[in-house]
Amino acid sequence: MRTVTLKQIAEELNISVTTVSKALKGYSDVSKETKKRVLDLAERLDYTPNSFAVSLRMRQSKIIGVIIPDTVHYFFSIVIKGILKVAEQHDYMVILMQSNEKFELEKKQIDLLLSKGVDGILISLSNNTKRFDHLQKVIKHDIPLLLFDKIAKTVNCSKVYIDDRKAAYDAVTYLINKGYRRIAHFRGDLNPQNSIDRFLGYKQALLDNNIPFDPKLVYMCNNNTDFDDGYNNAKQMFEDHGHTIDAVFTITDLISIGIIKYCDDNGIKVPDDLALFGFSNWFMSSVINPELSTVEQHPFKIGETSAEILFDEIKRKLNDEPIEYKKVVIPTELVIRKSSEKSENNPIKKVINL
Amino acid sequence: MRTVTLKQIAEELNISVTTVSKALKGYSDVSKETKKRVLDLAERLDYTPNSFAVSLRMRQSKIIGVIIPDTVHYFFSIVIKGILKVAEQHDYMVILMQSNEKFELEKKQIDLLLSKGVDGILISLSNNTKRFDHLQKVIKHDIPLLLFDKIAKTVNCSKVYIDDRKAAYDAVTYLINKGYRRIAHFRGDLNPQNSIDRFLGYKQALLDNNIPFDPKLVYMCNNNTDFDDGYNNAKQMFEDHGHTIDAVFTITDLISIGIIKYCDDNGIKVPDDLALFGFSNWFMSSVINPELSTVEQHPFKIGETSAEILFDEIKRKLNDEPIEYKKVVIPTELVIRKSSEKSENNPIKKVINL
Repeated sequence: MRTVTLKQIAEELNISVTTVSKALKGYSDVSKETKKRVLDLAERLDYTPNSFAVSLRMRQSKIIGVIIPDTVHYFFSIVIKGILKVAEQHDYMVILMQSNEKFELEKKQIDLLLSKGVDGILISLSNNTKRFDHLQKVIKHDIPLLLFDKIAKTVNCSKVYIDDRKAAYDAVTYLINKGYRRIAHFRGDLNPQNSIDRFLGYKQALLDNNIPFDPKLVYMCNNNTDFDDGYNNAKQMFEDHGHTIDAVFTITDLISIGIIKYCDDNGIKVPDDLALFGFSNWFMSSVINPELSTVEQHPFKIGETSAEILFDEIKRKLNDEPIEYKKVVIPTELVIRKSSEKSENNPIKKVINL
Repeated sequence: MRTVTLKQIAEELNISVTTVSKALKGYSDVSKETKKRVLDLAERLDYTPNSFAVSLRMRQSKIIGVIIPDTVHYFFSIVIKGILKVAEQHDYMVILMQSNEKFELEKKQIDLLLSKGVDGILISLSNNTKRFDHLQKVIKHDIPLLLFDKIAKTVNCSKVYIDDRKAAYDAVTYLINKGYRRIAHFRGDLNPQNSIDRFLGYKQALLDNNIPFDPKLVYMCNNNTDFDDGYNNAKQMFEDHGHTIDAVFTITDLISIGIIKYCDDNGIKVPDDLALFGFSNWFMSSVINPELSTVEQHPFKIGETSAEILFDEIKRKLNDEPIEYKKVVIPTELVIRKSSEKSENNPIKKVINL
């Protein structure tokens, strides 16, 4: 179809092209009536501004890239919602990519985004990303880059994340203050920083409360920390330790939900026989029976904040203003529900070896 | 940083620019060794092809737009995963937008995608979209358009969806064959087609089994069919009808999960006191207690199929081949779990008025 130009609109309304352009941009020095006439005609003629022209004039593509490990993930789906909301406010569009936890794919996606000339990139790293040349490449290309949630401390750019170590420390300390002593931890892979930090927080909480750290109470979740990890590790834990375990702190809610399922199937009562504390506050955790105590990470806030910082850096870059990299730690909170609250008439069994 | 050109690579390796270009594109008439030398150098020099040049040469942006009502939604997160997988295979990138169930926003997003020059658009309509001028505009611009899941039958383009009416009919027929007679329906808004069709399927199943349709057993979910709708409507239903209801068929799993929560809080046993049948097979439904019977919609298949068809239409358009719009109905299945299986020793109460 023929493309409509500002000139045609101007001629048809018998006003200047500048006025038309200003009206479309909503400038205040154009009368309300004129704006309405211009917009109505633009609408009627299906006028759409030529984006390539705009990009070139503005030195902007008005697109940012977002790479996450997986879209089918409650936490990331909310982060994305936060990013899209802010992008919308800045008239930006978002190219979404998922690395499926694969380093090679993540690397390829960075190249694609660079070749597409995006104005900035937000990324949460895959669990298998141990080298960061691809991120260095983005920085070398002078494209604003921000890491969120799954970050690499050594990469020199802005970062938005939570204090996993403190959050885990708080959760386990809560369990200890509740009287639980023999507390197991179902941890994530050895590599990702948040998996390491949650484990260290767990360990520190025990030590600070004079509870000996027992490596035999730490179980590794290998299937990318999913439901089955919780179910199978629970089975293994009861085989290894019988019913001597008080509570389990899990790296994600999904793991705890797998444990709840195992307990359901085997007549083990949560929390009276085994208390549980998850991490992430997935929606599921508020509706499962018993409701799961967990850590709120504020994913929407993580998405919003990450996007705000990136757009600020993009603006500064356009205006040749200096950019100071930001490290923002989003505060977490404990969400206490039934899974950690042992009923009064069923006090915590004292464990012999303490 | 300086941009690296094919010419520089060619000079450095002392081969022709054409050979470099062919090597980068992986053409077979370039020797393996040459390919390797070119790729290694391109990698070392951080060579990235200029995308605008490519777009112009190919008459392609290599980007498609995807508009969905909400990212924080298990069903859509899997559809997106399917779309991204296929886009990846076609070296395409995906701009994701969410309409938040707002027609005006959806309209604006279509304009943005058109102005960006995307090669095609996939969209699942917001519940409040009752006019389709914005979709007609896409068609008028000769941009391949495909509607999935929440479609508009009157818009002339390809569509991928499920047979909501049949799926609902099958679910309710299953409940009836199980012996349930007084079956309520918690339905969605009056507007969306899938909400209408699921209601009609429910009604038809009753009539075909000589069970009078009672409008008093149909409850409307207004909060965009979320958990609270299930909880609050369950409360209302027991106030209106006491314990005379056998079973509830809900428009989504989330509604059933809200009902389960209400029953938990009020000592009502599912399925012995009330059977439940959901829709969508959210992951949650397999881990909640009792596990929820539901309808599997195959969202990954919906995403894959939608993207495949769109990319085929984009290819045909580039080759000036004729395009035949496709209507693909993805088959659904009943997933039978505990929530619909009344225990033998507790047969279904016969209802007086039958």
